Amino acid sequence: MSFNTFGHLFRVTTWGESHGPALGATVDGCPPGVPVTAEMLQHWLDRRKPGQNKYTTQRREPDEVGILSGVFEGQTTGTPIQLMIRNTDQRSKDYGDIAEKFRPGHADITYWQKYGIRDYRGGGRSSARETAARVAAGGVAREALKVLAPGLQVTGYMVQMGPHGIDRARFDWDQIEENPFWVPDAQAAEDWAGYLDGLRKSGDSVGAVIEVTARGVPAGIGAPVYGKLDTELAAAMMSINAVKGVEIGDGMAAAALTGSANADEISMGPDGPVYNSNHAGGILGGVSTGQDVVVRFAVKPTSSILTPRKTITKSGEETEIVTKGRHDPCVGIRAVPVGEAMMACVLLDHLLLNRGQIGEDLPGKIG
Amino acid sequence: MSFNTFGHLFRVTTWGESHGPALGATVDGCPPGVPVTAEMLQHWLDRRKPGQNKYTTQRREPDEVGILSGVFEGQTTGTPIQLMIRNTDQRSKDYGDIAEKFRPGHADITYWQKYGIRDYRGGGRSSARETAARVAAGGVAREALKVLAPGLQVTGYMVQMGPHGIDRARFDWDQIEENPFWVPDAQAAEDWAGYLDGLRKSGDSVGAVIEVTARGVPAGIGAPVYGKLDTELAAAMMSINAVKGVEIGDGMAAAALTGSANADEISMGPDGPVYNSNHAGGILGGVSTGQDVVVRFAVKPTSSILTPRKTITKSGEETEIVTKGRHDPCVGIRAVPVGEAMMACVLLDHLLLNRGQIGEDLPGKIG
Amino acid sequence: MSFNTFGHLFRVTTWGESHGPALGATVDGCPPGVPVTAEMLQHWLDRRKPGQNKYTTQRREPDEVGILSGVFEGQTTGTPIQLMIRNTDQRSKDYGDIAEKFRPGHADITYWQKYGIRDYRGGGRSSARETAARVAAGGVAREALKVLAPGLQVTGYMVQMGPHGIDRARFDWDQIEENPFWVPDAQAAEDWAGYLDGLRKSGDSVGAVIEVTARGVPAGIGAPVYGKLDTELAAAMMSINAVKGVEIGDGMAAAALTGSANADEISMGPDGPVYNSNHAGGILGGVSTGQDVVVRFAVKPTSSILTPRKTITKSGEETEIVTKGRHDPCVGIRAVPVGEAMMACVLLDHLLLNRGQIGEDLPGKIG
Amino acid sequence: MSFNTFGHLFRVTTWGESHGPALGATVDGCPPGVPVTAEMLQHWLDRRKPGQNKYTTQRREPDEVGILSGVFEGQTTGTPIQLMIRNTDQRSKDYGDIAEKFRPGHADITYWQKYGIRDYRGGGRSSARETAARVAAGGVAREALKVLAPGLQVTGYMVQMGPHGIDRARFDWDQIEENPFWVPDAQAAEDWAGYLDGLRKSGDSVGAVIEVTARGVPAGIGAPVYGKLDTELAAAMMSINAVKGVEIGDGMAAAALTGSANADEISMGPDGPVYNSNHAGGILGGVSTGQDVVVRFAVKPTSSILTPRKTITKSGEETEIVTKGRHDPCVGIRAVPVGEAMMACVLLDHLLLNRGQIGEDLPGKIG
Repeated sequence: MSFNTFGHLFRVTTWGESHGPALGATVDGCPPGVPVTAEMLQHWLDRRKPGQNKYTTQRREPDEVGILSGVFEGQTTGTPIQLMIRNTDQRSKDYGDIAEKFRPGHADITYWQKYGIRDYRGGGRSSARETAARVAAGGVAREALKVLAPGLQVTGYMVQMGPHGIDRARFDWDQIEENPFWVPDAQAAEDWAGYLDGLRKSGDSVGAVIEVTARGVPAGIGAPVYGKLDTELAAAMMSINAVKGVEIGDGMAAAALTGSANADEISMGPDGPVYNSNHAGGILGGVSTGQDVVVRFAVKPTSSILTPRKTITKSGEETEIVTKGRHDPCVGIRAVPVGEAMMACVLLDHLLLNRGQIGEDLPGKIG
Repeated sequence: MSFNTFGHLFRVTTWGESHGPALGATVDGCPPGVPVTAEMLQHWLDRRKPGQNKYTTQRREPDEVGILSGVFEGQTTGTPIQLMIRNTDQRSKDYGDIAEKFRPGHADITYWQKYGIRDYRGGGRSSARETAARVAAGGVAREALKVLAPGLQVTGYMVQMGPHGIDRARFDWDQIEENPFWVPDAQAAEDWAGYLDGLRKSGDSVGAVIEVTARGVPAGIGAPVYGKLDTELAAAMMSINAVKGVEIGDGMAAAALTGSANADEISMGPDGPVYNSNHAGGILGGVSTGQDVVVRFAVKPTSSILTPRKTITKSGEETEIVTKGRHDPCVGIRAVPVGEAMMACVLLDHLLLNRGQIGEDLPGKIG
Repeated sequence: MSFNTFGHLFRVTTWGESHGPALGATVDGCPPGVPVTAEMLQHWLDRRKPGQNKYTTQRREPDEVGILSGVFEGQTTGTPIQLMIRNTDQRSKDYGDIAEKFRPGHADITYWQKYGIRDYRGGGRSSARETAARVAAGGVAREALKVLAPGLQVTGYMVQMGPHGIDRARFDWDQIEENPFWVPDAQAAEDWAGYLDGLRKSGDSVGAVIEVTARGVPAGIGAPVYGKLDTELAAAMMSINAVKGVEIGDGMAAAALTGSANADEISMGPDGPVYNSNHAGGILGGVSTGQDVVVRFAVKPTSSILTPRKTITKSGEETEIVTKGRHDPCVGIRAVPVGEAMMACVLLDHLLLNRGQIGEDLPGKIG
Repeated sequence: MSFNTFGHLFRVTTWGESHGPALGATVDGCPPGVPVTAEMLQHWLDRRKPGQNKYTTQRREPDEVGILSGVFEGQTTGTPIQLMIRNTDQRSKDYGDIAEKFRPGHADITYWQKYGIRDYRGGGRSSARETAARVAAGGVAREALKVLAPGLQVTGYMVQMGPHGIDRARFDWDQIEENPFWVPDAQAAEDWAGYLDGLRKSGDSVGAVIEVTARGVPAGIGAPVYGKLDTELAAAMMSINAVKGVEIGDGMAAAALTGSANADEISMGPDGPVYNSNHAGGILGGVSTGQDVVVRFAVKPTSSILTPRKTITKSGEETEIVTKGRHDPCVGIRAVPVGEAMMACVLLDHLLLNRGQIGEDLPGKIG
């Protein structure tokens, strides 16, 4: 992680602002020979795309991704892949007021203090549009994972919207694609629709918790100490706009457990170790166990709201601000495909790192 | 963050196992001319040292740190500082059983699978002893911070032990040094003592939540996107042994807030912007606001417990395990100085990064 | 340096192939507030542009650079700057033969072996077109250097073409811009013109030595051991296509000197230390002395020539190859602006690194 | 390469000064299960050790290496390996004069300017003693190479001392171990002995050129653009103290060749491609061809000499300096094992990188 690049062997550098001509990602270190087309990546971008239903920003961007390099005759060449998305709907007049005033809870003020210059037209680099580039890069990672770890499957979904959590007893993988919130609980989907509708009409916004699960991750991925898979995933998720908390497995709740309750007991299955529970979220000592890798992150509510808030101007005068424009009442919804993309990138990176240091087969056999 | 190194300009590489001859940290990129002596670092190590009271492991290690390079006549030279701590109490016979069995909830099994070799005498590289090296490196960071940001103050404390949280209404900075748990709530300190005593006698363990606050952090530290100060702190804390969750400011609770409640309103104070609340934990868009930087992390309970748990052996046989030896009923206690050290290292690193890219004064003035 | 990225704080990632839709550079970590426009960068690209005279490839590319991000209202914002150059003249039919045969002395064969896939239309990623992106990034570095180190001046020039060296006694800075070879020796320029003409007509090519001098580099830039300024410059220059040797100061000739002859004696001038000679090329112990920083690098002759050479095909059959198409008889000519760009990038990066670790003023005064 | 660390997956961080208590290397990312003992490493350190004959410094250091971590029961564990060498002969009184005066051609003055503090007792971090740590780390790399690339063999030797080069017609691998200069030409060894003896008696010093050849490097190692194997080797060699020039294959002489002369023609051998010459030094487009990888570097003469040179003091007074003490008339001799160590480290690192991105088998078959 360094400013605008993440990853070690599979490295993604994103660039671009919300109201410039384009944004994108430079993907370096991808294995060669992976089938990749713009269509494959578009599939994932379409899931994140704004304006798809009344619950997300009405900004209408086709978010069409182009591949400018690194792919030849439908396959990755092993050299850097440039993914570019043009900005088409840059109705910057909506943002006029923000040029002088700082939105509370937004990067406006810190960007101004740090850089002394700021693309006020729409948050510039701090805009959530940056995450479109991550989703495109994550699409490349997913295709490479298909080749390297065929059974591996990354799925994100919402588990909490504002104060309303899902009921784990109703958890159903098949529900995730059936509602606009990617929530695995049909009842919650119904309840949340009404709740969010009210919020949208009031011009306010709300936070959310997203969970991303990777099934079929082989044991042995990750590294101890600063390269813990937990660490890498925490950094990946926390780097998403508006994220303020990250949990692996039981997360913050692990604090309340006793050692005897927290220990995921091990027995021997036909294909190796089997765990009787998964408090650890599939990671022990920073290295994957072969269980599901489970990460959750909290997205704070958008700071661009219609409710007037007290603030100051660049010249230091106290005032109030109301942010008009087209915003998401719950940006957390669109963070679901972003979290999936980050999970895919981190896992691919660590599969490559593991292959580099250890080789294609793990040396430690059990049984 | 890469395996055993963290930081960009101020870079710390730790090395060593719990039962080898020594462990330590190589600290690279420290500014020259910072007064540093072994005594200064020892102060912080003594806080983390085991065996200080009945609530931490009875392993007795003096944890005496020596400076082997990078300091000349009491000042840093700008070249790498080698900090070494000899292991003296390596009663490895206690661990005999673990050579063949895997402790549930411990890195034993994943290390074995990944590396095919494992220092079974005490967790090897996965032992919490590694954190002694972080505390020593954090001591160097603290001394450099004194020079670069004189008012900056890093303080860690426990806010939850097992299911028992502190009462924020009773929060008192002065209480932190007055009890063995570094808890800022005198009543909690008393209650927890009894609770932990019972747990210790039963041979079980419990998790904890630690909060680390940095006061006096100047505005403008950090960077957007992957270099967000939130991201760096999340990675730093999550890289500590047994940590499974990290929160910045309101953390996971931010999900439940509306945008109007979450917005930290801004007014103008005599020395610049003043915030009416701190839901953001002192960081907006990845960059510090000048408010307190607030991080929390959850430490899971130790997996080395006397309660028998089901597990398997290296040869794949199902069995039970009881971990004798000298363990911490609540390792979270000793994680407090470790969290402080990580905060100090991250802040120093980002002060240097900011000075590198931006210079000694921030260009964006307000008022 | 890692695959497609170089630099520490000022980091450049290049991407793109010779016959894809575009190529470019992602420039990260640039200080904010630096005046940068596409026109400023175009100035440097025009110097490298092919087809300008009969001595360089007749491929006609306008090499027009666009800025897609990181610049707002004519100033850098401190966020990533995306520089894109579209490929317009992709006459790929010229390269048909190369799809099956490997050019001796060219990356064709190793790319094929390593990646199993290769954009045969024009060398793909191994094409010297990649260096256009470096020149664009170097243009940004030059503008930042103007702000950070106003007197600093980077100048490249040829000192040898094939077996013909310049006469140092005739060295004249003003001649550099007066001839198509950027040679600071008017007589050499005349002689080389005839020599190269003959070579071009014969369909052969020749190597060259380029020297890049930076005047006005402040003392104290660089770092010891692996971050030696010599090391960084060597890596930067060696990373340019076709470069096979790099020298700092006296370079390889330093081997033949005695210690007494090699010592650059020091006396005291009005503004600090003055050196009586510059065998060291302006760098002692990896750190700049304040003298001119002098680097030389050798470019091997193009492997794409009309002279038939023995080679093999992908199916392992022995054959001969003649590379038609439009090639440079002396690619070294166009390497001059590339060498300048690399020097500018390395110096800016180390100015920022030095400011990060040490601050804006050097602590060690003399006198 | 960053300050005191080099390598990507196999990463070496060195630390320590010539007159502190110890120096060493932290080796991170080594594959697990590699047999390593202190004795194995000592073998290589003994070759570099000073005081072995009258041609190297009379400082007597046993240079005994200890392994403090990362090796368990004679095998690497995959976690960081700490290698420590204690300084025993620190006769610092010899250096008294240097505390105030700067040696021309030495890092004394730039360290002082940059850091404002300097361990004047013996060059501190700029001392060639730092290279002992590299040799130890290189020993680990050699053992890992034995496992990963069994036929690979790294051999260094001198090809020039002062103005005297070897005669390539007399090149004999078997002579290298037979003389104190590691020169593969028996006649040169004899001639140089007399030459160096005279120089030593006069108190002067001389430079040298060292060549390091790696035989048995598989094709496909390295990467294009900034990760070119040429680039990595150039950086590795240039980072050695006193090195001022690096060449790959024909190096600077490549400039004088025509394209037809420089092209290493390819034919088909029983096991794959065979090259009729090796101007490229075994690397095309940054990627190994399977031929010998050949690197040369020039070491400048020691600046610590008995011949008086003009210089200045810290207070800016002009004066003369004569460096007494025990120095090498030709430090190039002891640079031979250092060059070998750097070659071993770079090749291992790139073998791991290649395995990470590409896997254990190269996808591009020929024939």
